[in-house]
Amino acid sequence: MASKPSLQPISDIALRYGISAEHLISYGSDAAKVSLALLNSRPTKGKLILVSSITPTPLGEGKTVTTIGLSQGLNAIGRDAIACIRQPSLGPVFGVKGGAAGGGNSQVFPMEKLNLHLTGDIHAITAAHNLAAAALDARLYHEQRLGDAFTEQTGLPRLNIDVNHILWKRVVDHNDRALRHIEVGVGGGVNGVERSDGYDITAASELMAILALSENLQDMRQRIGRVILAHNTQGMPITAEALEVAGAMTVLMKDAIQPTLMQTGENTPVLIHAGPFANIAHGNSSVIADRIALQFADYVVTEAGFGSDMGMEKFFNIKYRQSGIKPSCVVLVATLRSLKANSGKYDIKPGQPLPPEIAESNVELLALGCKNLGWHINNAKRYGLPVVIAINRFPTDSVQELDYLREFALSCGAAGVEISKAFAEGGQGTAELARAVVAASQNADDVNLLYPNEASLREKLQALVNTYGADDLNLTAQAEAELAELEKQGFGHLPLCIAKTPLSISADPSLKNVPTGFSVTISSLRVSAGAGFIRAYAGNIMTMPGLGTLPAYRNIDINDAGETVGLS
Amino acid sequence: MASKPSLQPISDIALRYGISAEHLISYGSDAAKVSLALLNSRPTKGKLILVSSITPTPLGEGKTVTTIGLSQGLNAIGRDAIACIRQPSLGPVFGVKGGAAGGGNSQVFPMEKLNLHLTGDIHAITAAHNLAAAALDARLYHEQRLGDAFTEQTGLPRLNIDVNHILWKRVVDHNDRALRHIEVGVGGGVNGVERSDGYDITAASELMAILALSENLQDMRQRIGRVILAHNTQGMPITAEALEVAGAMTVLMKDAIQPTLMQTGENTPVLIHAGPFANIAHGNSSVIADRIALQFADYVVTEAGFGSDMGMEKFFNIKYRQSGIKPSCVVLVATLRSLKANSGKYDIKPGQPLPPEIAESNVELLALGCKNLGWHINNAKRYGLPVVIAINRFPTDSVQELDYLREFALSCGAAGVEISKAFAEGGQGTAELARAVVAASQNADDVNLLYPNEASLREKLQALVNTYGADDLNLTAQAEAELAELEKQGFGHLPLCIAKTPLSISADPSLKNVPTGFSVTISSLRVSAGAGFIRAYAGNIMTMPGLGTLPAYRNIDINDAGETVGLS
Repeated sequence: MASKPSLQPISDIALRYGISAEHLISYGSDAAKVSLALLNSRPTKGKLILVSSITPTPLGEGKTVTTIGLSQGLNAIGRDAIACIRQPSLGPVFGVKGGAAGGGNSQVFPMEKLNLHLTGDIHAITAAHNLAAAALDARLYHEQRLGDAFTEQTGLPRLNIDVNHILWKRVVDHNDRALRHIEVGVGGGVNGVERSDGYDITAASELMAILALSENLQDMRQRIGRVILAHNTQGMPITAEALEVAGAMTVLMKDAIQPTLMQTGENTPVLIHAGPFANIAHGNSSVIADRIALQFADYVVTEAGFGSDMGMEKFFNIKYRQSGIKPSCVVLVATLRSLKANSGKYDIKPGQPLPPEIAESNVELLALGCKNLGWHINNAKRYGLPVVIAINRFPTDSVQELDYLREFALSCGAAGVEISKAFAEGGQGTAELARAVVAASQNADDVNLLYPNEASLREKLQALVNTYGADDLNLTAQAEAELAELEKQGFGHLPLCIAKTPLSISADPSLKNVPTGFSVTISSLRVSAGAGFIRAYAGNIMTMPGLGTLPAYRNIDINDAGETVGLS
Repeated sequence: MASKPSLQPISDIALRYGISAEHLISYGSDAAKVSLALLNSRPTKGKLILVSSITPTPLGEGKTVTTIGLSQGLNAIGRDAIACIRQPSLGPVFGVKGGAAGGGNSQVFPMEKLNLHLTGDIHAITAAHNLAAAALDARLYHEQRLGDAFTEQTGLPRLNIDVNHILWKRVVDHNDRALRHIEVGVGGGVNGVERSDGYDITAASELMAILALSENLQDMRQRIGRVILAHNTQGMPITAEALEVAGAMTVLMKDAIQPTLMQTGENTPVLIHAGPFANIAHGNSSVIADRIALQFADYVVTEAGFGSDMGMEKFFNIKYRQSGIKPSCVVLVATLRSLKANSGKYDIKPGQPLPPEIAESNVELLALGCKNLGWHINNAKRYGLPVVIAINRFPTDSVQELDYLREFALSCGAAGVEISKAFAEGGQGTAELARAVVAASQNADDVNLLYPNEASLREKLQALVNTYGADDLNLTAQAEAELAELEKQGFGHLPLCIAKTPLSISADPSLKNVPTGFSVTISSLRVSAGAGFIRAYAGNIMTMPGLGTLPAYRNIDINDAGETVGLS
């Protein structure tokens, strides 16, 4: 369906934007890491466009397609544009959803490189994370083995790791449910200290957030040093610095801190950095990628994961708060089908036939689902920015429906509503959207954050669940105790990184559209002292996905010519 | 101590040997993957030199330094030479031993790239291996969850995985003793099926051996399909092909099958491919790297891990047997200090002061330790090839000792004995060794293998332990049962890949020098059907190392200028 792209050497793409070859570290002719020497090498000139969406549905909203398409559309109307997206995780690539290269005439090439190893960033984070885990378990083992002789024999202080209070799990970039809860060191003896442990998917590692939020290499080194791995038997934090592993972790991530430059099928530059999963992580592209892009482009289009209650909220309350990088406009992506699915009247499953009411023109059903869009418009506007709606159009969309949606969105205060034909037509199909975004982004106001740093953690939680429309905020006994402990340890000034379902504005995936009359229960609170936020877990949220019955890997192979097939 | 190297763009290095830029995929200016299109693009012209050593000691023999130095020495005497080495593992890099870049004036640059991520091969193998593990546990879970409805609901046949007979562990490229024995799926329910599992270090993955032994991409695909992941409840093998995951695993390893080209400090090309750990893996560089190098160089110097009883034995009985790649000469590396340490009279620990008898001239002690060298000379000669001894010289070595060693080695049938000053002087310091190697390699005879394919597995084991000098071969009851099963399943024609300590010619690390009056007990036999060998475990051999009390990672960091320090 996509026309075959005519790719250019990545060094030509860079040069067109003013980045010379000396600042590129090539990984083949089609991708290059960008040197951090570019940071602050020239003034910021660009405006940042933040792409978010309505509450996601199994039908897909096309947010990445729109992000890539909009950057091409900005090019098409004569603006220098760069897209900043996140590296796909192998979990979804081999699981169910597929990769994150966009699609049709709005995608990043070569898709295979983007979706698999890229330039090794996620592998490097996995290695650095698991080095700390191995180091912690080894120290636990040797201190227990040698007892009082440990210090005499090694010259190192005893850390007295509390085996029941180890906070640093291991990570792997796969959907592997069997690793959610494991027992390590089984049998004891020379095989370590037996204890309960578990794996998260790598995107949920604090190191991924640190990569995304660091201002430079030295900042990353300091943040990694602050990472809290465990408590000691006196209940005090043990950091990566105290374990003397922070330097080695940084060295493993030294290449990864450089964003990767690729291109779209229309030769628009794309910077790829940091990771996905805005439900369990902060889920935004990196500060470094944004900053570099804003130096070399008039418009930088970046995608925040899931709906505006997830990645966008975290963009403002974490990334903007730490970096000061301010968007000029928020784009909310919606499809008519997804809006109708958001009505909550149907139980839609991927791969199963759609109810006819969703596939056919149905203004009444659309009107119901549009309430979800209204909520997201208001949610974006509360931060003070203009909001443009991008309707990711399907051939079956009716004129009546499109008219209704346009009127509705404008009545909610959208600064513009445009149809995006990014998938079918690439940049030409998003030129109108691009013009609307350019117009809207001239009027950006100051950003209003949800809460000030000095608010208490409880006040911050309350402010956040208020935006969801919750009647009540509850904390489990564990969360209450952790909250008190975090305030006592001096982490109360940090912002929140909520972990919750992306499938509802609430924390309950079964509550569709705009839920009312619900409460949010926080089950646990953990500090990410290096990333600089408090992880708040709402509901039964899993930080390690699982593979389904018919996983995507079954279709992926090489053909007789040695080419990759089945990857999407 | 090393002079600062003057590196050339890797494309210039390649071009000097006749490899044009179109066949390189650059990873920065200092490393490039080499296209498989080069395979069989021109006739083989080179001779292969296989570098092995005496039984390793904590003092180190300098095998990698000699391998790199010899390739430079061959350059220095006017021969086109390429070194083929293996990618270092992060386990030793952050553990105790350090990296594997060589040292002094015989090393690969940039050392940091070689020792850390290189071009991502080990990460890719880890990802492919763990995808299969996740896929297997997910299938186990879904078949158990859905019971008889599984096939109806998915359209897939039931594999009926025997939870007590899963052969595919997970892997990580770290020294992580706590992962040797783990319990996964703890708690059951949506978190998978609870069962015993464990991790190996990635170099021990069958996929590493497959990468090393594959002739091309399609061969790798077929081998991965043959990998046996588990048995079903009827005791029949379940392959990666049956789980429909072999294609995706291959796609993950599609870049990794291309060797990486780097250079020494004297601009000699080095191809890096496959992995270390010849004690628990086959531990040789790849067939593909050797074949490409032999097309473009007069001499290809490759290193086999540990002593001649380990990597060299596996080179002949596995790699040569499968590929037909024949060395023209074996080089055995020794130091006077290591020979004296091999006497077995002292308990030498890394980092502790040496007994004075070892540090000072002591011909008597050397004569005792030389028996170990004599064994390795004979062990190499049994394969029919000329053997040259490389004495990796230390400044403290006495003339009397060197004279004794030379006479002894010649009396054992060595074709030449030369001093290597590779560390201090680079290629100039190995010119004499290079001349001896060139002279010896003109006389290579046919290779004699230890056993024919058609010998039974017991006969193969007997032939192997006979070379160690063992009086008896014992099999545990488990090994006996596994041997019978493997013969029954039709795997009896495969060669052996022994897993044993490298610290003794026997399977007992406490038996030094040339042990006699011992027996070897095989505790377990497993088939690597994709790699094409039978893994035989002798003694209590661990496939996952652990971190010591003072691990190397403590010294690794970035400095104020952002440069890596402490890596070696």
